[in-house]
Amino acid sequence: MNNHKKAGRDDQMSKNACAWQPQLETAEQVRDKSFATGELPLEKGRYTLVWGAFCPWATPVAILLDLLHLDQVIGKSPVYALRHTGVDNDWFFGEKDSELDPLLQINRLSKSYQKTESAFTGRASVPALVDLKTGKVVNHSSAQLLSELSRQWKKFIPKDAPELFPVRLETQILQTNQQIITNLAQVSSQIEESATQEEYERLVDQYFDQLAVFEKQLEAQPYLLGRQLTLSDLLLFVQLVRFDVVYYYKNKLNKQPLSALPNLWHYARRLYHLQAFKQNTDFLAIKQHFYQGTQVVAGFSNVLPVGPDVSAWESR
Amino acid sequence: MNNHKKAGRDDQMSKNACAWQPQLETAEQVRDKSFATGELPLEKGRYTLVWGAFCPWATPVAILLDLLHLDQVIGKSPVYALRHTGVDNDWFFGEKDSELDPLLQINRLSKSYQKTESAFTGRASVPALVDLKTGKVVNHSSAQLLSELSRQWKKFIPKDAPELFPVRLETQILQTNQQIITNLAQVSSQIEESATQEEYERLVDQYFDQLAVFEKQLEAQPYLLGRQLTLSDLLLFVQLVRFDVVYYYKNKLNKQPLSALPNLWHYARRLYHLQAFKQNTDFLAIKQHFYQGTQVVAGFSNVLPVGPDVSAWESR
Repeated sequence: MNNHKKAGRDDQMSKNACAWQPQLETAEQVRDKSFATGELPLEKGRYTLVWGAFCPWATPVAILLDLLHLDQVIGKSPVYALRHTGVDNDWFFGEKDSELDPLLQINRLSKSYQKTESAFTGRASVPALVDLKTGKVVNHSSAQLLSELSRQWKKFIPKDAPELFPVRLETQILQTNQQIITNLAQVSSQIEESATQEEYERLVDQYFDQLAVFEKQLEAQPYLLGRQLTLSDLLLFVQLVRFDVVYYYKNKLNKQPLSALPNLWHYARRLYHLQAFKQNTDFLAIKQHFYQGTQVVAGFSNVLPVGPDVSAWESR
Repeated sequence: MNNHKKAGRDDQMSKNACAWQPQLETAEQVRDKSFATGELPLEKGRYTLVWGAFCPWATPVAILLDLLHLDQVIGKSPVYALRHTGVDNDWFFGEKDSELDPLLQINRLSKSYQKTESAFTGRASVPALVDLKTGKVVNHSSAQLLSELSRQWKKFIPKDAPELFPVRLETQILQTNQQIITNLAQVSSQIEESATQEEYERLVDQYFDQLAVFEKQLEAQPYLLGRQLTLSDLLLFVQLVRFDVVYYYKNKLNKQPLSALPNLWHYARRLYHLQAFKQNTDFLAIKQHFYQGTQVVAGFSNVLPVGPDVSAWESR
């Protein structure tokens, strides 16, 4: 997954400690360990995934656990969608400081990072796979978790579960993931930094051109890469779920609503109606995270838009 | 029209020098004169209406002129939709400082105000009816212009033109106008000043509750007050035209898009397809005005959203 090393590091979501790849600062302090190398044992009940429903990089991992029934062997520890007042580099496990994650028995994610590296000073990012035996973060790379959980945990995955990262599609999946990261996810972050009308419009074109490519791809096949659900679909789904609710609005990516791209809109809803996708999709958490940095709502720029109406997601 | 005296004075559009009623400051310096009292002569070719397609108070007057064929006897002098760099209290007649209005032969509106009152220091607001003989602003109240042009200029209005302000509907029209002003126009301004989630949501409810009332009214009748087009329709139309393009987005009034209110959406498009409405509707001018204070586009907060797609207005 070397071609992902750079992607996502410098985007806003990374600053927000929700990352595709760990930030350099934390990556140096907390080195990701691997199942593929045998460095991490494959053990039922040994790990929990710390994730947040707001995070487009942690959510695909949470979806993957449910899709592959790995939620039966790996725990899930969701963090609260908003920062706590005055704390901008950590995630808490509840709305109140005192609430503990039932598996980890800690109130904030940084404690797991500090168990791994006592001098930890980075931003505690999600996703983070934590070893329940030691309380340490053993991997905090969305890219690597998606790949390794798909391939290394096969003995715990039922035969009828989808194969999300088949070797024969690996190149295509990695290329498609990169398109999603570069032309959708990163653009939605970069656009808010655009200083001129021209730069803004160039980024809008980049974004909608990519949507048009995917719209075309989905004309004749049910999934991005054909007849098979893959990791790329997980990554695209979390982008589409955020589109009308956040990007269309907050990032002025409002050339068209998602419903104007019928193949993408039907595809997104089709995935949404799969249990693994729906139960890891929380529109309120997504809105809170992107519109409100902290729990303190001060002024119009932070108030949570009442819309758009997301009820259409419920119709098939 | 006494019940309109207060309305609109303290809203943001007034600050922007686009007003339903003149600001107190300019009203004291430039007293509005009346056709009803005979103070102003009814004379073909004597006046021009200074207006801007961006302004929801000047635009209904421009629509009225065309609807009643008064455009044959009163001129129209449109101002440029954007402020000129460094000038925030005046409107220019072109994109360049040097461009003159062909009727008035001036480059900026304040010159007409200064002819009326040489010590004029207020904000030059639109609409402004200017006497071409003297170059002076003789009336700059949208409320009064709509009323007086409907009623006092009858001898120039063809018999088959609509009666926009019939005496038998006067109370209803004034009440409805007040609803539009208080619950739609002012809310869209006030909402950006809301300091809390609760205040914001209260204003959203106020706005959408009013839309729901109008949606219901239009269920069984073609116009707001029945079978007859009135001034209230002109005022509501300019609000609806701005809804998806500005308010839905910039003012977080995004509970539903206009198309989710089918009666209002069909009504708005039906009016739009009348020549008098369409030729005074300029989506680009509206967007420029509300997103860009001046011609200098600096940073994301000022870039003009590429969307939403307004092509649906063209379909009947």
